[in-house]
Amino acid sequence: MAKTAVLTPQNRDFPRWYQDVLAKAELAENGPVRGTIVIRPYGYAIWERMQSEIDQRIKSLGVANAYFPLFIPQSYFEKEAEHVEGFAPELAVVTIGGGKKLEEPVVVRPTSETVINSYFAKWIQGHRDLPLLVNQWANVVRWELRPRLFLRGTEFLWQEGHTAHVSEADARAFALRVLDEVYRDFMVEVMAVPVLCGRKTTRERFAGAETTWTCEGMMRDGKALQMGTSHELGQNFSRPFDISFLDEDGGQSYAWQTSWGASTRLMGALVMAQGDDAGLRLPPRLAPVQVVVVVARGEGQVSEGAQSVAGALRSAGMRVEIDGRVESSFGRRVVDWELKGVPVRVEMGPRDLERGEAVLARRQRGSKETVPLDGLVPAVHHALEETQTAMLQEATAFRADHTHEADSVDEAIEACAEGFATLPLSALGADGEDRVNAAGVSVRCLLGADGGPPEIDTPEAGLVAILGRAY
Amino acid sequence: MAKTAVLTPQNRDFPRWYQDVLAKAELAENGPVRGTIVIRPYGYAIWERMQSEIDQRIKSLGVANAYFPLFIPQSYFEKEAEHVEGFAPELAVVTIGGGKKLEEPVVVRPTSETVINSYFAKWIQGHRDLPLLVNQWANVVRWELRPRLFLRGTEFLWQEGHTAHVSEADARAFALRVLDEVYRDFMVEVMAVPVLCGRKTTRERFAGAETTWTCEGMMRDGKALQMGTSHELGQNFSRPFDISFLDEDGGQSYAWQTSWGASTRLMGALVMAQGDDAGLRLPPRLAPVQVVVVVARGEGQVSEGAQSVAGALRSAGMRVEIDGRVESSFGRRVVDWELKGVPVRVEMGPRDLERGEAVLARRQRGSKETVPLDGLVPAVHHALEETQTAMLQEATAFRADHTHEADSVDEAIEACAEGFATLPLSALGADGEDRVNAAGVSVRCLLGADGGPPEIDTPEAGLVAILGRAY
Repeated sequence: MAKTAVLTPQNRDFPRWYQDVLAKAELAENGPVRGTIVIRPYGYAIWERMQSEIDQRIKSLGVANAYFPLFIPQSYFEKEAEHVEGFAPELAVVTIGGGKKLEEPVVVRPTSETVINSYFAKWIQGHRDLPLLVNQWANVVRWELRPRLFLRGTEFLWQEGHTAHVSEADARAFALRVLDEVYRDFMVEVMAVPVLCGRKTTRERFAGAETTWTCEGMMRDGKALQMGTSHELGQNFSRPFDISFLDEDGGQSYAWQTSWGASTRLMGALVMAQGDDAGLRLPPRLAPVQVVVVVARGEGQVSEGAQSVAGALRSAGMRVEIDGRVESSFGRRVVDWELKGVPVRVEMGPRDLERGEAVLARRQRGSKETVPLDGLVPAVHHALEETQTAMLQEATAFRADHTHEADSVDEAIEACAEGFATLPLSALGADGEDRVNAAGVSVRCLLGADGGPPEIDTPEAGLVAILGRAY
Repeated sequence: MAKTAVLTPQNRDFPRWYQDVLAKAELAENGPVRGTIVIRPYGYAIWERMQSEIDQRIKSLGVANAYFPLFIPQSYFEKEAEHVEGFAPELAVVTIGGGKKLEEPVVVRPTSETVINSYFAKWIQGHRDLPLLVNQWANVVRWELRPRLFLRGTEFLWQEGHTAHVSEADARAFALRVLDEVYRDFMVEVMAVPVLCGRKTTRERFAGAETTWTCEGMMRDGKALQMGTSHELGQNFSRPFDISFLDEDGGQSYAWQTSWGASTRLMGALVMAQGDDAGLRLPPRLAPVQVVVVVARGEGQVSEGAQSVAGALRSAGMRVEIDGRVESSFGRRVVDWELKGVPVRVEMGPRDLERGEAVLARRQRGSKETVPLDGLVPAVHHALEETQTAMLQEATAFRADHTHEADSVDEAIEACAEGFATLPLSALGADGEDRVNAAGVSVRCLLGADGGPPEIDTPEAGLVAILGRAY
C-alpha cells in the first residue's frame, strides 16, 4: 500500500521515522548553521496553537509577559556558581559588533535568570511589589554538539517564567501551580499526552535551582522526554543579585524565586508521542486545521458543495480548510493530509453530492463512514470530541503497557529497553543513580504515593523513582 | 498642579519628555548591553495588542507565519552586493560557540532576506508553488551607535514578511497591498495615527530593493518617523539565490519578490504621536486596558460596586481593570492611570454609590462627567468610540497645522523646523536631495497627485515630495 511506503515504519527505525515525518509533513528542516532549525509554516501553525494555549494558562495565574535582551554581559553569568558552571560549555559569544572588536564580549542568552533578576532587583523594594510574576516568549541559544530537530538545538523557541515571592512556601506553591495548571493541564488536556509530574533528583535538577519539578512523557519508542520544568530557585539568585524587600515587620528579606520553561521541544514530543506509520496525528484541540474538506473530482457543483460544508463547519466553531486541488491525484492528497495529521477528513465527490452524502474519515483510528450532509456538522463535532478522548486513552494505555514495576536496579535497567520502570526509591539505594546512568538510563523523576509530585518533606520510603532512557 | 509636575513638558524638551513617559508609564528601560531594551509588562501588553492586530491583517492576505534561524553564515550575506554593503557596518558576529573558536563566524540576523531566500530556492520549483507568502515575528540585531529606546536599538522585535511571485506586476501589487491593508490600515484605524504612504527616493530605499514604499507619521514635535516599509526586491535576491520556477510555458524564470517589516519602533511612534504633557494616551482599539475602575475610598460596598460595574463592562466586550489600591492616595493613582494613557476612567466612591452614580473621565480630552450607574455601559462604550475618532482627527489636524506647502528648496528646509514641507518634485531639482540632506532634512516619501503612493510610471511632474526631519 502507498500509505506505508511513504515513511520508514516506526518499529524499523524510529529516529528515521521521526526525521521522515518532519520533512514530509513539512514541519521543519535544518538551518544552515549546525543545530539551528527552520520551522515551516505548517509546523509553526501548530506551535502558534501551543503558544496560545500555554499563554492563556500562564496569564490566568496572573503572570504578565515582558521582553528582556538577547545579549547578556558575560559578567552577569558569573554571579551564580552552579548556573555558570552548568551553562558555560554551551554559550555562544558575540565578540564583534559594528565591525569592531567589543571591549566586553556579550553572551547570547541560553536562559534569562541573570538578566531578568538584575531588573527584579530594581523593581522590587517592598512586600507590596511581591509576588512579581513575569514571563517571556523568546529564542535562546545553547551550543549543541548533538543537535536533533525540535529536541535539542543550538537555537530554540520557548517561554521562560520568572517569579519572586515573599516566602519559600509561596514560591514552592507557585512552582507547583505552574507545573499542574499550565504544563500538566496543557499536555494532558490539549496534547493528549499523559505526563508524569514529579521531582527531579539533585543530579538532574536545573543548574542554580534548589528543586526542579518536571513533566515527563513517554514517546512511541518507549523513551522519555522531559516536556517542561518548573524550578524553585530558593534565594540562589536573589542573594547575588540583591533582590531584597522591606517586609511587613520592617525587616529586609531576600525574595524567594521560581523559574519555569517549555519550548519547541513540545513539537518533538507531539510527533513522537502521537504519530504513527502514516505520519503525524494531531489532537483536535491543538490542530490548526481540524477538518479538511477534500474535493474528490469535478470542480463546479462539488466545489460549491465543499464551500457550503466548510462554511457550516466554521460557523460551528471548527478550524476548516478546503482542498480543491483536483489537478492532483485524490489518493496522493489523502496521504498528504494523513501525513499532516488532520483529525477529520470530509471527502466529497459528484456521486456523494448527488446522494446528499459525504465520507467522514477519522485520522486517529483510520475509519471511514458515510454521513448524510444534513447531519454532517454534529457528526464531525462528535468525531473531534471522540478523537481527543481516544488519543489520550491510547497514549495512556501505551504507557501502561510499557511501564514495568521493578524491585531491583538491574530489573529496572533491563525494563528500560522497552519503556519506563518504576522502582521504590529505597530500592535504588545510594549508588543506584550511578549504576543506572552507566547503563544509559536516568531517573526521570520521583513521585509520591499518589503518583503526583511528592511533598518536599516526604520520607524517602514513600517515594517511587521513574526510570527511563531519555531524549 | 501635580499633573504637570510629573513629566518634563513636551514643548520644553521633547526627547526628555519621551524618556520620562517611557520610564514613568513603565513601558521600557535600557538593557545592560548598550542599545538593548527591556520591554516592561505594561509596554509589552501594548506590543502584544499591536502584534495581534498586525498579525490578523497579515494572515488575511493569505500569508503564513514561520520561523528562520537567528544565526546566518557570513557567506550568505555576501551574495547581494547592495545588501551586504548596507548591513555590514551594523552586524554582530558570534565567533565563539561552546567554548571554542568557530571555523566560520556566524552573523546575528539584522534582517532575514538571505536565509529565507536560501529556503525559498528549495521550496519553489514550479509556478504552482507561487505566490509563496511567509512572515516571521522575530528579534533582529543591528549594532547601533546612537541608540534610542524603541526608535533605534541594537536589538528590536519586528515582523518581516517575505514573498515570491510569478511576475513583477504581482510582486508590486502585493507590496502595495501590504502597505495599504496591513500597515496603513493598522496605523490609521487602530493607532489613530494618520500616515503618509508613498515611495522612497532611490537614496532612501532599502539596501537590496528596487523600490521601497513607506508609511510616515508625524510626531508631536513635528518630526517624521518611518513606521513601516514594504519593498519590491525585483529579482535582486532570486538571481543570486537561484529562486527559479518552471513557468506555465515550460520556461525557467526567476521569481519576483517583496519583503516588508514593522517593528517595536511603532511603540515609539505611539508615544510620540499620541502622548501629551500628562503622559501616554492610548487609542481604545489598541489599549490593553480600555477602562479602569478606580475605587476612591471605602473597601466594602464600593469594592463590590466596582466589581459589578467591571463585570458589566467586560460582558459588553471591553478590556477592564479594577484599581482597588485604596491604601494609596486617590490623586496619585489618577495621575498614574493618566501616565499610562488608559482611555476611560470610572471613579467610584461611597457617595457616588449612594446616589447610584459614577464619574466617567476621558483621557483624550481630559473631561469628567457624572453618569447614572444604570447607563454606565453605553456611556463608556460611547466614550471609547468617540475617543478613537477624536484622536485620529486631532492627529490629522496637528499634521495639517504643521505641514507647509513650499515652492522652493530653501522654503522647504525652513518649514521643516516646524514640521513637514511639501514640495513638487520638479522644484526639488537634481541637487535638491543633497541640499536638504546637508540641512538635516530628508525626503520622507514621494506622493502621487491623490496624496497616495504614486503609480511607478508617474512622470516626475506629477509627484510631490514630502520633506521633514526624521527620527
